[in-house]
Amino acid sequence: MSTNSAELAQQYRRALVEDVLPFWEKHSGDRECGGYFTCLARDGTVYDTDKFLWLQARQVWMFSMLFNRLEPRESWREFARHGAEFLRRHGRDPDGNWYFSLTREGRPLVQPYNIFSDCFAAMAFSQYALAAQDEEARAIADATYRNILRRKANPKGRYSKAVPGIRPMVSLALPMILANLTLELEWLLDPATFNEAVDTCLREVFTLFLDERRMVLREQVAPDGRRLDCFEGRVLNPGHGIEAMWFIMDLAERRNDRAMIEKAVDVALHTLELGWDRERQGIYYFLDAAGHPPQQLEWDQKLWWVHMETLIALLKGYRMTGRKACWRWYRRVHAYTWKHFPDPEFGEWFGYLNRGGKVLLPLKGGKWKGCFHVPRGLYIGMRELEKLAAGPPA
Amino acid sequence: MSTNSAELAQQYRRALVEDVLPFWEKHSGDRECGGYFTCLARDGTVYDTDKFLWLQARQVWMFSMLFNRLEPRESWREFARHGAEFLRRHGRDPDGNWYFSLTREGRPLVQPYNIFSDCFAAMAFSQYALAAQDEEARAIADATYRNILRRKANPKGRYSKAVPGIRPMVSLALPMILANLTLELEWLLDPATFNEAVDTCLREVFTLFLDERRMVLREQVAPDGRRLDCFEGRVLNPGHGIEAMWFIMDLAERRNDRAMIEKAVDVALHTLELGWDRERQGIYYFLDAAGHPPQQLEWDQKLWWVHMETLIALLKGYRMTGRKACWRWYRRVHAYTWKHFPDPEFGEWFGYLNRGGKVLLPLKGGKWKGCFHVPRGLYIGMRELEKLAAGPPA
Repeated sequence: MSTNSAELAQQYRRALVEDVLPFWEKHSGDRECGGYFTCLARDGTVYDTDKFLWLQARQVWMFSMLFNRLEPRESWREFARHGAEFLRRHGRDPDGNWYFSLTREGRPLVQPYNIFSDCFAAMAFSQYALAAQDEEARAIADATYRNILRRKANPKGRYSKAVPGIRPMVSLALPMILANLTLELEWLLDPATFNEAVDTCLREVFTLFLDERRMVLREQVAPDGRRLDCFEGRVLNPGHGIEAMWFIMDLAERRNDRAMIEKAVDVALHTLELGWDRERQGIYYFLDAAGHPPQQLEWDQKLWWVHMETLIALLKGYRMTGRKACWRWYRRVHAYTWKHFPDPEFGEWFGYLNRGGKVLLPLKGGKWKGCFHVPRGLYIGMRELEKLAAGPPA
Repeated sequence: MSTNSAELAQQYRRALVEDVLPFWEKHSGDRECGGYFTCLARDGTVYDTDKFLWLQARQVWMFSMLFNRLEPRESWREFARHGAEFLRRHGRDPDGNWYFSLTREGRPLVQPYNIFSDCFAAMAFSQYALAAQDEEARAIADATYRNILRRKANPKGRYSKAVPGIRPMVSLALPMILANLTLELEWLLDPATFNEAVDTCLREVFTLFLDERRMVLREQVAPDGRRLDCFEGRVLNPGHGIEAMWFIMDLAERRNDRAMIEKAVDVALHTLELGWDRERQGIYYFLDAAGHPPQQLEWDQKLWWVHMETLIALLKGYRMTGRKACWRWYRRVHAYTWKHFPDPEFGEWFGYLNRGGKVLLPLKGGKWKGCFHVPRGLYIGMRELEKLAAGPPA
């Protein structure tokens, strides 16, 4: 397997360094107003100039992380700085909450109703603080993280439309992101805060959201973990569940918890079995746990991030456990992903395919796709493959 | 044309009275808790019991309207009463705003953030008041209508996520629904209120939202009608625009305004030209006015209501103007609609097809599809066809 892994690692590295990153470096910098354009047409043309916090922050994180972990290219740090400055100046309301979107010039458009803006901002400023040795960036990451923990019990705040007390519900998304974010921020947290946050994430993900019988994660459950027989309670998001599992594998590896690694791999494989489209290939976007029609009209589409996150989970799972099912599934998902998503003509990757694997929207970036899942998946995939090339899996 | 129209009228009547209505009468009544189930699987099985105000109210309207206008069947009035009682008891918050959804038992689930719940409730209680000669129902319709006019300038209220003042935006949906609602409620409004509301609707739809060059309606514009180059400002919803035009044709006919009828027909035809999928047939759900990728992943799907509303607009347009383009398009959309949407096996109609016309979700009802667009389209289509059978178009 090692030669093969080495070749694959090269394939991921080349796509990352020679195709995907140059596309964003060339097309996404807003030299006039700062920050990044993320709404890029197939050929990189900017078709919308609004700035969505999720994507601004993720791109700052991306270039900072690559500077820190792949290669200290000054141009990468500078490109991260370009976005970080824009966010530092325009991203927060007076209470330090991160807006959801800004105009091109940085005026706030959509209120801080969405706590994931804060999560990605904390990730961004943490990596950027390391890249730039910037004390103010560290302080922003720290303050934002503490603010997230404060808002955690009621993340939507006054924007929640649920009538209180009738059908209380908690979402997987927040503990799942916190698993990843807490590990990202470990260097700036005191050990007690770190350990407590990790314990909470693991407990929540595995006791509240895990359906132990089917070994798949629910997206929403009652606060005591009870399953809810309503649209929100039944929906399954295979890509999300699988992504959560590689976050957990990272935490479990950090703690050297073999049993937890095995459990995370089990869940990832069961989720993939359930989410794989046996007729047309690829992984569904949404399913209903009871087999009812899901609410999401886009349920059968094949999305780039779902496939990238699955590749990461399978490679980590294989390296950490040596389970052959991980490698078998990895080869299958790798083949599908590389056949359908990269754009051979204009570079970078398509994001949205219909069920049959045809391009549904030719964009390279939009309101939700930016410089994040493709390059992160390529980078982590490359690293995992390099480790596999260097020696057999655990 | 008259024989043909008469046959078509029979086809619509039979589908309405022998197929669609019996499906809802058989499967949707909640005999235990009151109100209606709307989440019905292909065969009518209930797969979710939450009660969405839009759909509860629309079904009350439907059976009341049929009692009032098609045939005074006591079972229809009784079925309307069954829903009206549930809504009267559980539908409003203490200030008289209508919730968005309720549990099966009628406990409020989602707050009254959505003013269209109020619009459909007003429609429902107005028709039901006529059917049942119920003074309290009339008062509910009246109070709800006045509350809508009061909330009109800021329909989302405290649930709005937009930062005030940065990019103010108004939506076509509200003046468009008000055009229809005001005509529905004419019998209970004083003439001054009626006329002022109609004037406002017409002015707003045709001066703010109409793109005069392309003769299509924008969904969102600046309060002064300026076009906005952002996702919300560029999005086109052909079915919505065409539906708005038959509401306007009704108002213009009521006022005997020939020029306005012609204009509404022009807009409907231009919108259809733009929205028709020349490759795979059917009408797209969303498009971007500048040809950019729309934000909505479901943009290329073919939805039942889009096609039903288009049939109504084309039949009304043809009857009121005699324009041959209306009849030509009507035959084409009729053929597509009747080929793809009715379910020959279990009755009623599918709602969601993929671009190629294959069933995407086999449901007969859900969170957004209920007992409304199919039977309303069949009823109005039948009436228009009967008029055409009786004499040549205008």
